[in-house]
Amino acid sequence: MRDDTERKGPSRRVFLTSGAAIMAGGAAAAQGTTQGADPLITEVQPWASGFGDPVDATPYGMPIRFEEHVVRRNVEWLTESPVSSINFTPIHALEGTITPQGCAFERHHSGAIELSKADYRLMVNGRVDRPLVFTFDDLMRFPRHVMTAFCECAANGGMEWGGAQLEGCQFTQGMIHNMEYTGVMLRDVLAEAGVQPEGTWVYVEGADASSNGRSIPMDKAMDDVLIALFANGEALRMEHGYPARLVVPGWEGNMWVKWLRRIGVHDQAVESREETSKYTDMMPDGRARKWTWVMDAKSVITSPSPQVPIRHGAGPLVVTGLAWSGNGAISRVDVSSDGGATWHPARLSGDVKPKALTRFHYDMDWDGSEMFLMSRAIDDTGYVQPTKQALREIRGVNNVYHNNGIQVWWVRADGEVENVEIA
Amino acid sequence: MRDDTERKGPSRRVFLTSGAAIMAGGAAAAQGTTQGADPLITEVQPWASGFGDPVDATPYGMPIRFEEHVVRRNVEWLTESPVSSINFTPIHALEGTITPQGCAFERHHSGAIELSKADYRLMVNGRVDRPLVFTFDDLMRFPRHVMTAFCECAANGGMEWGGAQLEGCQFTQGMIHNMEYTGVMLRDVLAEAGVQPEGTWVYVEGADASSNGRSIPMDKAMDDVLIALFANGEALRMEHGYPARLVVPGWEGNMWVKWLRRIGVHDQAVESREETSKYTDMMPDGRARKWTWVMDAKSVITSPSPQVPIRHGAGPLVVTGLAWSGNGAISRVDVSSDGGATWHPARLSGDVKPKALTRFHYDMDWDGSEMFLMSRAIDDTGYVQPTKQALREIRGVNNVYHNNGIQVWWVRADGEVENVEIA
Repeated sequence: MRDDTERKGPSRRVFLTSGAAIMAGGAAAAQGTTQGADPLITEVQPWASGFGDPVDATPYGMPIRFEEHVVRRNVEWLTESPVSSINFTPIHALEGTITPQGCAFERHHSGAIELSKADYRLMVNGRVDRPLVFTFDDLMRFPRHVMTAFCECAANGGMEWGGAQLEGCQFTQGMIHNMEYTGVMLRDVLAEAGVQPEGTWVYVEGADASSNGRSIPMDKAMDDVLIALFANGEALRMEHGYPARLVVPGWEGNMWVKWLRRIGVHDQAVESREETSKYTDMMPDGRARKWTWVMDAKSVITSPSPQVPIRHGAGPLVVTGLAWSGNGAISRVDVSSDGGATWHPARLSGDVKPKALTRFHYDMDWDGSEMFLMSRAIDDTGYVQPTKQALREIRGVNNVYHNNGIQVWWVRADGEVENVEIA
Repeated sequence: MRDDTERKGPSRRVFLTSGAAIMAGGAAAAQGTTQGADPLITEVQPWASGFGDPVDATPYGMPIRFEEHVVRRNVEWLTESPVSSINFTPIHALEGTITPQGCAFERHHSGAIELSKADYRLMVNGRVDRPLVFTFDDLMRFPRHVMTAFCECAANGGMEWGGAQLEGCQFTQGMIHNMEYTGVMLRDVLAEAGVQPEGTWVYVEGADASSNGRSIPMDKAMDDVLIALFANGEALRMEHGYPARLVVPGWEGNMWVKWLRRIGVHDQAVESREETSKYTDMMPDGRARKWTWVMDAKSVITSPSPQVPIRHGAGPLVVTGLAWSGNGAISRVDVSSDGGATWHPARLSGDVKPKALTRFHYDMDWDGSEMFLMSRAIDDTGYVQPTKQALREIRGVNNVYHNNGIQVWWVRADGEVENVEIA
């Protein structure tokens, strides 16, 4: 019986000195740089000659220590207090479409609270036939639904209205995550209470001190809004609203109320602080647009990007990024390496779902010269992601929210990447 | 301006004593048990009157402490040593389709090794035009693909060949997980090396001491096998093969070699220890079936189940579980509450993808009497999941592997659940 596992070091060494080569994803790459001399090939390594960790080492595992840079980061000067602040998903280091809960961005208005299932209550009141209070276990008796959706803070990219200011897509576009949620439809819970004819809005609030109340039109509430009890297969994390948060597909993250404690049914919008002084769009004439709930189509190249420079030189280069639209599914993503003069369609990889992150890849042969790398998303309504300049022409530069403009990365010949704008 | 967030305790108390009720997902449930007297409703809670955790509290988060029971568990007596052993995914407590890496089952042959990207090498040799060695960065220059796939140990349910022995689907069916992988196609890496005409098999081995080598026919290697570099959006965890593992969709987990270090191209199967003394199916006549790679269609009800008894009494009950097939997509799941006398179609919730876990839900009105709860999966080849008895009639009871028989849970009138077989 032939068994190559029996061939130990010697034959492998012979084999390697007789012609093996390090290849780098294509013929143009670092061929033969360690030919026959790589001790990682020619010698038996410690990890191949002893036992590793047993199966009872980590009942719940964490990322390996080599990945400790792949974490949420906040920017201290952005906000006055870290309990009313944000951090950013390390999208530059992620792949695929799912965002792990452990590094999915947080936005709190009065900090993340610890609320047990036993202490959890959800009240439904206002213009309903039967005002009700549900325990967590009560919610677990409603029909459950599974949906994947992106959650994007309305202020994602907000610093860019005034020009390129932050280095790295973690900071410029990282107030976004994408999870597979399981929960119960808001419409089913509302039906249990019996919405009265004059109930045209719901007002949702959380159990934290800020309460973060927002008004949602009844049409949306009865459409695809989910009371999520699980994310990515397991319970929500504390910082994402354990044990129950709202998922409002395609709409701005502020409406995705965490630690959901009350759903009031109203005959008009409440016009709370969170939807009047905040989350409205300041226009050049000093007036503000409100009720701009939907997050328009957007995309960003996550690698290469300022935190992920090109280290391998010219030759095969994988360009990848994320695209999304609050209005539907992504139908196409184009990539330009020459500042928008020419565009090339990228591959959409894996799932392409409405109101969820879509991964794209563009495989190119880099000639080693500088590039102005951009992506633009097109959704199934035909909407094309605009440039930042086009947005500013209408909305000015005093706005904070809803910046879905095209991001430009300047890739220098040495592989370093900078956040820039092109005139 | 009307703003319900301004209404503090007093009016809420008034409201509640004027007719609110605790409802439990349906009219039959515990209506009114805490009417007007629940201090969680009538009093201001500590979590609503102070700050929670700031955004810099957990750069990488873990589950909340209330969920500390949702972890991988091993069974000490099952194996001689915890470095050559298994643990089990807590599928009884999960929802949706994604398995978080942190609690996804592990099977090691010589323990989980710590191997950095800098130290990582992948050799492709044997019957190829150009024997090659790739670094991790080299692999990152191949076109990337995203796919979701279940990984099931061939021995999942193995203890059940001899009868109902373990309590809880975590232990009877928990050697399974389902992740969204991103990586490079094995066929692309093989093409770089140039497979010679006589190369009809690959032999894949890991960098751990066991090496865990397995033979894979070239047709499969050239079809959908992925060298995974990411799982659920982030890097693989150490215990799942960081930085690179094989994904062999639909085929038994043992072939999904972790810490992948070599792909040998051969003109025949190697017939290694892992595919001769192990991972073959012992038949009643003492002979063994080999090359039984595909995991046939299977399902299990995850709740209620022995670890998740019914605590809420009669009335609306959510029955949920998982179904999967190594031969394709799940087309239907049926649920029986009377030991298989009558079957009812369940809802397939969320994604229904080939060779990936599919979530099903069955919403019923429980009358409070005992049930023999079962599920059966049907895949898009028309295959119907068999009973354990039907499997034993052909394969006997001396086998360890490939038990895809129907699981029966005896739900007693008090809501407790036991693993049973029905004659």
